[in-house]
Amino acid sequence: MAKQREIKLASRPQGMPSQDNFLFETVEIPALQADEVLVKSLYISVDPYMRGRMNEGKSYVPPYALGEVITGGVVGQVVESKNDRFQTGDFVLGELGWREFNVSKGRLTKLNPQLAPLSAFLGVLGMPGLTAYFGLLDIGQPKEGETVVVSGAAGAVGMIVGQIAKLKGCRVVGIAGSDEKNQYLVSELGFDATINYKTSPSIRKELAELCPQGVDIYFDNVGGDITDAVFLQLNDFARVALCGQIALYNTEKVEVGPRILPILLVRRALLKGFIVSDYQPQYSVAMQELGKWLQAGQLKYRETIVEGFENIPEAFLGLFRGENVGKQLVKVADPF
Amino acid sequence: MAKQREIKLASRPQGMPSQDNFLFETVEIPALQADEVLVKSLYISVDPYMRGRMNEGKSYVPPYALGEVITGGVVGQVVESKNDRFQTGDFVLGELGWREFNVSKGRLTKLNPQLAPLSAFLGVLGMPGLTAYFGLLDIGQPKEGETVVVSGAAGAVGMIVGQIAKLKGCRVVGIAGSDEKNQYLVSELGFDATINYKTSPSIRKELAELCPQGVDIYFDNVGGDITDAVFLQLNDFARVALCGQIALYNTEKVEVGPRILPILLVRRALLKGFIVSDYQPQYSVAMQELGKWLQAGQLKYRETIVEGFENIPEAFLGLFRGENVGKQLVKVADPF
Repeated sequence: MAKQREIKLASRPQGMPSQDNFLFETVEIPALQADEVLVKSLYISVDPYMRGRMNEGKSYVPPYALGEVITGGVVGQVVESKNDRFQTGDFVLGELGWREFNVSKGRLTKLNPQLAPLSAFLGVLGMPGLTAYFGLLDIGQPKEGETVVVSGAAGAVGMIVGQIAKLKGCRVVGIAGSDEKNQYLVSELGFDATINYKTSPSIRKELAELCPQGVDIYFDNVGGDITDAVFLQLNDFARVALCGQIALYNTEKVEVGPRILPILLVRRALLKGFIVSDYQPQYSVAMQELGKWLQAGQLKYRETIVEGFENIPEAFLGLFRGENVGKQLVKVADPF
Repeated sequence: MAKQREIKLASRPQGMPSQDNFLFETVEIPALQADEVLVKSLYISVDPYMRGRMNEGKSYVPPYALGEVITGGVVGQVVESKNDRFQTGDFVLGELGWREFNVSKGRLTKLNPQLAPLSAFLGVLGMPGLTAYFGLLDIGQPKEGETVVVSGAAGAVGMIVGQIAKLKGCRVVGIAGSDEKNQYLVSELGFDATINYKTSPSIRKELAELCPQGVDIYFDNVGGDITDAVFLQLNDFARVALCGQIALYNTEKVEVGPRILPILLVRRALLKGFIVSDYQPQYSVAMQELGKWLQAGQLKYRETIVEGFENIPEAFLGLFRGENVGKQLVKVADPF
């Protein structure tokens, strides 16, 4: 039987994770059962949210189990199939293990390699792109001429939110943490304006100036003080897509802040929390549309690709040193 | 020309309002212009929310102007019409002045007197009933077997929310401020359980016991600590209809409380602020359905009716002394 490498969570990190938290093992690739598919990993995604799953506390995604293989987004190629829906050679995306080969019962999305480079299916056409797509379009319901504010604007999700909002004819204001990032958002991605929350003397005042018509849609990746400031600018019938909350990472203590329900009531605002997997049945439609925009050059993205299965932990650790520009990926193998 | 009485806001109340804040005048009834309708007042509604409109500060409803006639819900009968949509004798509901006769350009809802006693169109079939109906059904989207919690449960809106939720097959838990009210909610209106927020040692623990399956829908009339406690029990994909916030009445200072966005995100909850007039185009459909339930004895209500136009201010003042049981109304004239 063929052998392969896999990576397990050896221990739960305290604060910053390190190589010690990961354990490489070499194991046999099991024989396929009925309906199963054997997938060779090509690109493996490493994401900041995975840090949260390494803690014991439960959030909306269950924690990784100690001593088990770590899972996440993987783009791969079918090398053997006992499932009618997949054939050898198919490119697929799945929530799979940090393994060179995964056995799947078929909860995989078939990819169209004509649409975009395979790596894009983990970024602009993957979890970050789909998160931006559904949060903005389904919850935000943008209409031409409306004003969209996005926090965490220079993140993998935020960048795409802003670009889709521009495609829908909206005015887009991004909030991010450095002048360099903001420069990129405006000059490369077409954002109308940005705020550097680290240096702004008053986010509220800057927002009021940059959103003279108020805020119709707020895509929130961060929560806290930034979100408090945006809420004060919401228009009647505003929509808030609640995608991320930094406060979540500190589950021990409950943060305190200004009460927001009075303003949401007066504005008759809609607010909806979501995670991208809520929209799984609509993934393929969304990927088609994102792919079209991508091919038309209307959607830009950045990625940083590290080569080699053995470098997955290092690529993950690099996320927290800010080494990546755009989406961080690991290339594990070439397609056959 | 015929004369009539009307009531103006003479001065803005400081704290509790008094008779001095109101001014009676006798004026001529103006001749009708094209498209106008002359409506004789039969029942005039006095509501607690009007106290807020007597302040200068702006909420979602603009303040009453000093020296102008006070407006609110009025059920009347058409005595003359230059509008094709209305005929003499029609019963109508409108946002009209505290006058014996109002001239309207036709922003009136025609009433079906077969459906219910005319006074009900200001209560169970009026603003409170419609508020309950749209908040619960449109935002809450109740499904059989779900758990609904309503705060301000013994108020004109809350009572109807609970009864409609029961009609939809839900478990209903009401939160109100006295054992007597709670007794009424359970024994007369069919609520499954109640919490007396004034005497409960822990609203959160009581809720956890009374909602063993968690909370799917929360109809919020109050905000503050009670709402904080309910949020901790929300289920995944819960819906929150944001109808009232006591904190609103104190617009000077911003209240502080636990941050709720993390929990709304983790639960992927939907929250929507609304006021009933957002649903104006759907009023007649809702009134038909409420009327059917009423006629079938599936919806109960209470009202307190004072007679005489001259007693409107006194009936309004009585609201703040807790004199009314259920909806407070003033009967101004009999139908002709």
